[in-house]
Amino acid sequence: MNMAKYKGDILELLYHNRSTYLSGQTIAERLAISRTAVWKTIELLKQQGFRVHSVQNKGYQLTGFPEEWDQDMMALIIKQSSYFKRRFVYKEVTSTQLVAKEKLLEIDEPFIVISEVQTAGRGRFNRSWDSQGTKGLWMTAVFRRDVPLQKMMSFNLFLSLAIAKTIRRMSGAEAKIKWPNDIYIDDRKCCGFLTEISGEAALIQNIICGIGINLNHEASDFQQDLAVKATSLKAATGHPVNRYQFLEELLIEIEAAFRQFLVLDFKDIKDEYGQYSNIWQRKLRYTEGTTVVEGVAVEILDDGRLVVQDEKGTLHHFMSADIEI
Amino acid sequence: MNMAKYKGDILELLYHNRSTYLSGQTIAERLAISRTAVWKTIELLKQQGFRVHSVQNKGYQLTGFPEEWDQDMMALIIKQSSYFKRRFVYKEVTSTQLVAKEKLLEIDEPFIVISEVQTAGRGRFNRSWDSQGTKGLWMTAVFRRDVPLQKMMSFNLFLSLAIAKTIRRMSGAEAKIKWPNDIYIDDRKCCGFLTEISGEAALIQNIICGIGINLNHEASDFQQDLAVKATSLKAATGHPVNRYQFLEELLIEIEAAFRQFLVLDFKDIKDEYGQYSNIWQRKLRYTEGTTVVEGVAVEILDDGRLVVQDEKGTLHHFMSADIEI
Repeated sequence: MNMAKYKGDILELLYHNRSTYLSGQTIAERLAISRTAVWKTIELLKQQGFRVHSVQNKGYQLTGFPEEWDQDMMALIIKQSSYFKRRFVYKEVTSTQLVAKEKLLEIDEPFIVISEVQTAGRGRFNRSWDSQGTKGLWMTAVFRRDVPLQKMMSFNLFLSLAIAKTIRRMSGAEAKIKWPNDIYIDDRKCCGFLTEISGEAALIQNIICGIGINLNHEASDFQQDLAVKATSLKAATGHPVNRYQFLEELLIEIEAAFRQFLVLDFKDIKDEYGQYSNIWQRKLRYTEGTTVVEGVAVEILDDGRLVVQDEKGTLHHFMSADIEI
Repeated sequence: MNMAKYKGDILELLYHNRSTYLSGQTIAERLAISRTAVWKTIELLKQQGFRVHSVQNKGYQLTGFPEEWDQDMMALIIKQSSYFKRRFVYKEVTSTQLVAKEKLLEIDEPFIVISEVQTAGRGRFNRSWDSQGTKGLWMTAVFRRDVPLQKMMSFNLFLSLAIAKTIRRMSGAEAKIKWPNDIYIDDRKCCGFLTEISGEAALIQNIICGIGINLNHEASDFQQDLAVKATSLKAATGHPVNRYQFLEELLIEIEAAFRQFLVLDFKDIKDEYGQYSNIWQRKLRYTEGTTVVEGVAVEILDDGRLVVQDEKGTLHHFMSADIEI
């Protein structure tokens, strides 16, 4: 008997009922299969790294997940998304962003690309991003929608708020946004993302958003110079996060942010965004192109630009500066 | 003797001195080759469709070009460009825009793609564009440069002005711009273009600009419903244009416009743009997304948006409307 065909369905039942126990009888009836098939499939799940707790007379409870991304769990999570239609899950790629850009040529629907390992992960300014397998979430989310060019300027602001909220909810850590779009905990970076776009000059058609989040790294996983600048949710709070639950929440949150982005202006979320910002009331160095300014951020404008006041009192406007914290 | 190797050099001398005659002796000396090689190469040029007029005791003059795009002439024209570094010339492609997007993945430099025929030429709103071989110019110009997203909104305005100017200079026809970026002569369209972009959300890296211009079509070349809406430089003026000279001038003009675009704002060219516009003082129908307005254009704003007043006096702002003329 090939149990792989029941795996997805049983996993779905166990995952959605993971706060309780489900009896073998209940599962068998719900799926109209034999109790033997249920039992064998649960053995298969265990072999594949799922932890299923079984208690006589109560039944089964899903209590743990494989260390590596599991294709069926991914299918289950994307099935719940009302926006993303397909997922591509890899053991190793150069970067999810590159894979997404290739897929883009063939696929019309919104999709996500996830990889256990990226051998050449890249952030803004072409900076490398250390993408250790199983400890983080390395994902590219591809949005397909006609968006007026001038609206795009606020996309990263909506998205960074969504990511910061997810991190707060899932870890309890006080995630902050370093304008425009890095996420910090305790002044150390735990998430970066890179949004790329393509389309017509006045109307963007594709948004390709690569997100890297350090989830379960130990502090000792960050080597040398990274150690003072990087953190993970676990390193910051002492508690690991469940990658699947995190991904599920993140997708819900970024879908919601995308829909907000389509109908709202940045000014509508400016106050909330401001409360998540970690750059207020401190002197920082801002670099945009060849402009370097040391100063204090005084305001984010309605269009998302940041206003920084230097020591002489001169105001500088930034669209997308690199800020050293 | 293989004369093909001298073709480019002799062509270059003849092309740059085409207002006069060059003796075989002069050509031979300038290129340090034999007079026999000069004579044989000129025979080759003639075989390939160039017209070279020769007069005893005066020498040679280039007076005509092959009907189809010639690779060596193209090399010569791109060699004069200070911006575009490479060219790709095809007999037939689906569209130069598609080819350019493929090349983009491998090539870092600015380049142009030209084809004699496009089997699936497309304009804005995915409208087909009839691309008859040898009668027009079907080209995609790829610009490579980091450009802040908010600057991109004016790109088409700078470019359309460059194209309109080239058409006026090369044909004498009073080319006008139908905002934002079609070129008309006598209320008939002779040129359309489509700008696509890709890059980061705040910083565009690639501008892929597809331009189609009807040059030497006869009025009778436009079938049925197109006949009342389309024209060519020749149909409008009665005179054919030299495709190579036109291309040379066009490249110079769009390079200049691109450099202007990088350092100026639209408001700096707004007055000149306004003088080229054919939409003033007439009631037209404007469609942008689901918005349809009948009204009269009253102003172009500094950021390139068009202000249209409807019959009730209400003002509407358009970023990139489709206008029926």
